Amino acid sequence: MQLGLSVSDSDVSSFTPLVVLELADDTKAEAITWLLNRIRDKQQNGGETPGMLHLGKEKPNPNVFLVGSTLQRLLNGAEDVGLFKEFQDGTMRGFTYANRESFKDFNGEICDFILSDAECQYIIKHELDTLRAKNEEHVPGYPKLKLYPGKSVVRRLQSKGVLIQYFPLHNKEDLKRLSFSWYKKFKLSFQPLDDIRHYFGEGLALYFGFLEYFTFALVPMALIGIPYYLFDWEDYDKYVLFAVFNLVWSTVFLEVWKRCSATLAYGWGTLSRKKAFEEPRAGFHGALGFNPVTGREEPVYPSSKRQLRIYLVSVPFVLLCLYLSFYVMMVYFDMEFWAINIYNENPDIATSILLFVPSIIYAVVIEIMNLLYRFAAEFLTDWENHRLESSFQNHLVLKVLVFNFVNCFASLFYIAFVMQDMVLLRQSLATLLITSQILNQVMEAFLPYWLQRRRNKKVHKRMRRLMGDKELPLLGQVQLETEMNTYLGTFDDYLEQFLLFGYVSLFSCVYPLAAVLVVLNNITEVYSDAFKMCHVFKRPFSEPATNIGVWQLAFETMSIIAVVTNCALIGLSPQMKAYFPESDTQLILIVVTIEHVLLAFKFILAFVIPDVPKHIQVNLAKLEFDSLEALKKRVSTHLCRWCQWQ
Amino acid sequence: MQLGLSVSDSDVSSFTPLVVLELADDTKAEAITWLLNRIRDKQQNGGETPGMLHLGKEKPNPNVFLVGSTLQRLLNGAEDVGLFKEFQDGTMRGFTYANRESFKDFNGEICDFILSDAECQYIIKHELDTLRAKNEEHVPGYPKLKLYPGKSVVRRLQSKGVLIQYFPLHNKEDLKRLSFSWYKKFKLSFQPLDDIRHYFGEGLALYFGFLEYFTFALVPMALIGIPYYLFDWEDYDKYVLFAVFNLVWSTVFLEVWKRCSATLAYGWGTLSRKKAFEEPRAGFHGALGFNPVTGREEPVYPSSKRQLRIYLVSVPFVLLCLYLSFYVMMVYFDMEFWAINIYNENPDIATSILLFVPSIIYAVVIEIMNLLYRFAAEFLTDWENHRLESSFQNHLVLKVLVFNFVNCFASLFYIAFVMQDMVLLRQSLATLLITSQILNQVMEAFLPYWLQRRRNKKVHKRMRRLMGDKELPLLGQVQLETEMNTYLGTFDDYLEQFLLFGYVSLFSCVYPLAAVLVVLNNITEVYSDAFKMCHVFKRPFSEPATNIGVWQLAFETMSIIAVVTNCALIGLSPQMKAYFPESDTQLILIVVTIEHVLLAFKFILAFVIPDVPKHIQVNLAKLEFDSLEALKKRVSTHLCRWCQWQ
Repeated sequence: MQLGLSVSDSDVSSFTPLVVLELADDTKAEAITWLLNRIRDKQQNGGETPGMLHLGKEKPNPNVFLVGSTLQRLLNGAEDVGLFKEFQDGTMRGFTYANRESFKDFNGEICDFILSDAECQYIIKHELDTLRAKNEEHVPGYPKLKLYPGKSVVRRLQSKGVLIQYFPLHNKEDLKRLSFSWYKKFKLSFQPLDDIRHYFGEGLALYFGFLEYFTFALVPMALIGIPYYLFDWEDYDKYVLFAVFNLVWSTVFLEVWKRCSATLAYGWGTLSRKKAFEEPRAGFHGALGFNPVTGREEPVYPSSKRQLRIYLVSVPFVLLCLYLSFYVMMVYFDMEFWAINIYNENPDIATSILLFVPSIIYAVVIEIMNLLYRFAAEFLTDWENHRLESSFQNHLVLKVLVFNFVNCFASLFYIAFVMQDMVLLRQSLATLLITSQILNQVMEAFLPYWLQRRRNKKVHKRMRRLMGDKELPLLGQVQLETEMNTYLGTFDDYLEQFLLFGYVSLFSCVYPLAAVLVVLNNITEVYSDAFKMCHVFKRPFSEPATNIGVWQLAFETMSIIAVVTNCALIGLSPQMKAYFPESDTQLILIVVTIEHVLLAFKFILAFVIPDVPKHIQVNLAKLEFDSLEALKKRVSTHLCRWCQWQ
Repeated sequence: MQLGLSVSDSDVSSFTPLVVLELADDTKAEAITWLLNRIRDKQQNGGETPGMLHLGKEKPNPNVFLVGSTLQRLLNGAEDVGLFKEFQDGTMRGFTYANRESFKDFNGEICDFILSDAECQYIIKHELDTLRAKNEEHVPGYPKLKLYPGKSVVRRLQSKGVLIQYFPLHNKEDLKRLSFSWYKKFKLSFQPLDDIRHYFGEGLALYFGFLEYFTFALVPMALIGIPYYLFDWEDYDKYVLFAVFNLVWSTVFLEVWKRCSATLAYGWGTLSRKKAFEEPRAGFHGALGFNPVTGREEPVYPSSKRQLRIYLVSVPFVLLCLYLSFYVMMVYFDMEFWAINIYNENPDIATSILLFVPSIIYAVVIEIMNLLYRFAAEFLTDWENHRLESSFQNHLVLKVLVFNFVNCFASLFYIAFVMQDMVLLRQSLATLLITSQILNQVMEAFLPYWLQRRRNKKVHKRMRRLMGDKELPLLGQVQLETEMNTYLGTFDDYLEQFLLFGYVSLFSCVYPLAAVLVVLNNITEVYSDAFKMCHVFKRPFSEPATNIGVWQLAFETMSIIAVVTNCALIGLSPQMKAYFPESDTQLILIVVTIEHVLLAFKFILAFVIPDVPKHIQVNLAKLEFDSLEALKKRVSTHLCRWCQWQ
């Protein structure tokens, strides 16, 4: 056993480090010994392990460990987490250690063929997350750090600051290959989604798949939008056509995406994984009980309590925040009017500067509100104590989404429907779209990249000072990655796309160039996001994802709101009003009727297009049929055995 | 073998007749021999069979056969059709012959405990339906009755009139017990749904469950409606309240029904049955191929062809019919105006009689159109060649539904929104509701009952003439039931409830007494339907049903249309108009806004209420988990065996 082993005397070559574990530099030795033994114990149930590597007694932090694993242990882990792999007959099946030879590409001893790097790391993460306290009353060396049976050890250590972080290590060669095929060659091509999935996992690959799909889907919109802009078509007959196209497009686009994502997810083996077999998330706590589905021992928390927390605390809180955001918007418009009045009364330099003050204050307040709200939303969702990570994510996304929607679009809606000022609407929309895109690219990629480069240089310098010229690549790499920023998930990336989709679908009939801007943004977004994943952030753990989850619902809801908005905008247009000079009533009735017909058409369309392509439906039915047949056979085998015993 | 056996020399006591098979009285002997041998062959794969009973060489028809089966054959059949039964641990599992002993209530040799009468008959029906031609080129004795491999024999014989009918036999004792607990005791109580299911199968039991549930759900509506009617509350503030209550009620009612039906279906073992494993319906034809899911040989028909038939023929046809129905309605209104005008010009007896002529003509034309359309819809849906019975039913229901909706409600919509005559609307609604209820009860139960009684007497008389006093109960029973009318499925019963739901939810804010009338109707409906099932019609084959299928969607669509209609009706009311005397515009905008909020609320409500109760979700997940685990184990067992061989 190689506990406390320094780098120099370990057999580095036979050991593939997968996950980095960083403990606080003042962690007590007993706690370290206990934790490492617990990890090793867990691993040893599955066979011998090369253990882990203790990285550097040196500065800056002596308590960095590398976790690796044997192939056998990993294969057992793959069974535990329920990975689906391609079977010899080409269908996807739940992997099991016992029948590993029946899977395609299984090649005796080489891990790479059957398990990707990202999957190995995911398995180790799962093992670490499900490391639960047994009979220990507290963490050795820390009498105040109480433990009780069933409590996640890693989570406990992390929340108390003993465990600083754990993250998967980059694989330099794979990364080089991936980044070359992804964004370094400058010819236009599809992204290497399978490679991305192989390296970063399904969740991220689906995000990039969606980004690409969304961008391509916008191209026709953009192409139609350009002549409207160039020739200044103020003819609202054409806008009506544009709006109708927009609506059909947004429905078809979302339905077809479902099919694409099902195809991707099936090929990656995530489509058949069942939610109910997901392990509870690391932060989930409750009295130790039995999972009614699997019969395994795990924490149990009554869902009625969770419902109470959601409906009595979270929902009122969100509504309050929405009200507040609305109130702030009204104050902003008041300030705006006030500034314009002062300027009109006495137009000079001081008052013309004053004109900008309300917008600046509003922008700052919105940013602060977004930040505070996000913090509160995360706290609340955590407190709701969801059993599954997916359910946690869904509730978090819903909370943040509603608030961001109101914050971003409320002022536009106000301008459009209360002030009815289409010129101002077009201006605001263009300004918002362009500035938010530029800001996003800077904040998301270039700023972190610049910070990262500075940090890189510092680390390199320090390494050289410590080691002289005999640079140790692994040690250096670990040090570098330890100090990288953590990627907080696809949340913000999806949110950005969601808001862009909102700008395009809600108001594009007023500003048809929106689609062009979004396409341009997304082309750079692919490159900056890819670069950011490969070089700016720590490698994230793989997230097995079946689809884009709650975001599908979010986009669909947005497209329904878009029908209403577009119809209302068309109804408000002076050209439409000119058709019905004698009374507004008739105009409104016609617009409302058209809106209802469009909505009905949308629902029928969504109903008629199947969510999963035919051939995948057949494969899924086959899996289900086979497993039911197997269940029948298994029980009958039991019976035969029982007969023999008699 | 007891082919051609007359009643007198058969050992009737050891044989339980389940299904009656009636061939044309001039059927050639070779064809009979061939068919009976085919049926017997099929049964014999599963073990010896007591064969079938040839009922009477006597008049009126010598070619009536009774089909029975051994217990073992039935148990094997139960496995084939994929019945789910209660396991020893209380969960529902797919039944298999091999592990029959592990199921609850399995009691050696007595069939009743594990298989209900209805299930046995369903199994025999399944066997008969899946009797397919092998190498025979034609039916023996009928060179023109061509057969080709894979073609359903029974279907072919039926369509050529050789096989007149096959139907399950009533079980006199069970029927007596059931009808007593169902409708003969006159105290108010819930229906014995489990007994109904046991005797008639899940499809009918779900219909009666729904009927009961719907009636109970209407009681609060009816209670609220009574004071509105009694005190002539013309106050539209109260109507708004009533409409809002109506909308929330209709959403909650439909969502809660989903949970109830899931609970019922789980207990009856139909919730877990998979559609993909359904055998193709008897009428389905196509080249013989392999089912991609089960790998079994069966006819295959490309779904693209079916889609073409649906979208290029069926959809245009339905639209054409709708246009026609609409056109007829307009003609009716024109005639109505013409008649009123003539009456106003010259009011005497002749012209006052003329006033009724348009309505009568319209009613007759509508009935004829309904009949013709129903015929065409059945033909078209059959021609679409759906693989599964459920899919066939769905398409048929959708076609008939749309047309019936337009036929029933178009005139009401016209009166409400084009003529805007609320008094006429209320009158028409009341007239329609009351007359249709009375007509329905008469047409559905009393008329058939009366015809049936006449027929019964005739048969009894004939029997007595033939046999003298030594009456043979079985022979008499079969003769009686052979001449009973065939029950054509729950279609018309659901359709009636659907239209009643429409009257209540679409227009109840104009005529609050509608709910009271529907409750009264449904209370008698339970009795008349129960009576009709037990004594008027032939016993129907059991239909395994998971839910009320496409009707759920139909009711939900109706409740969405109801939101729009109710809001529009409130907007049209003079009281509401009085609030906005200066302009209609504001009123319309407010009504449209309220409508959108209500629709959004409705969708959120439907989204928040889970479709399947928690404990059943857990049981289903458990079944899935176990079967996946079993699949893993099975493959590993294969591997072990393979290892041993090496």
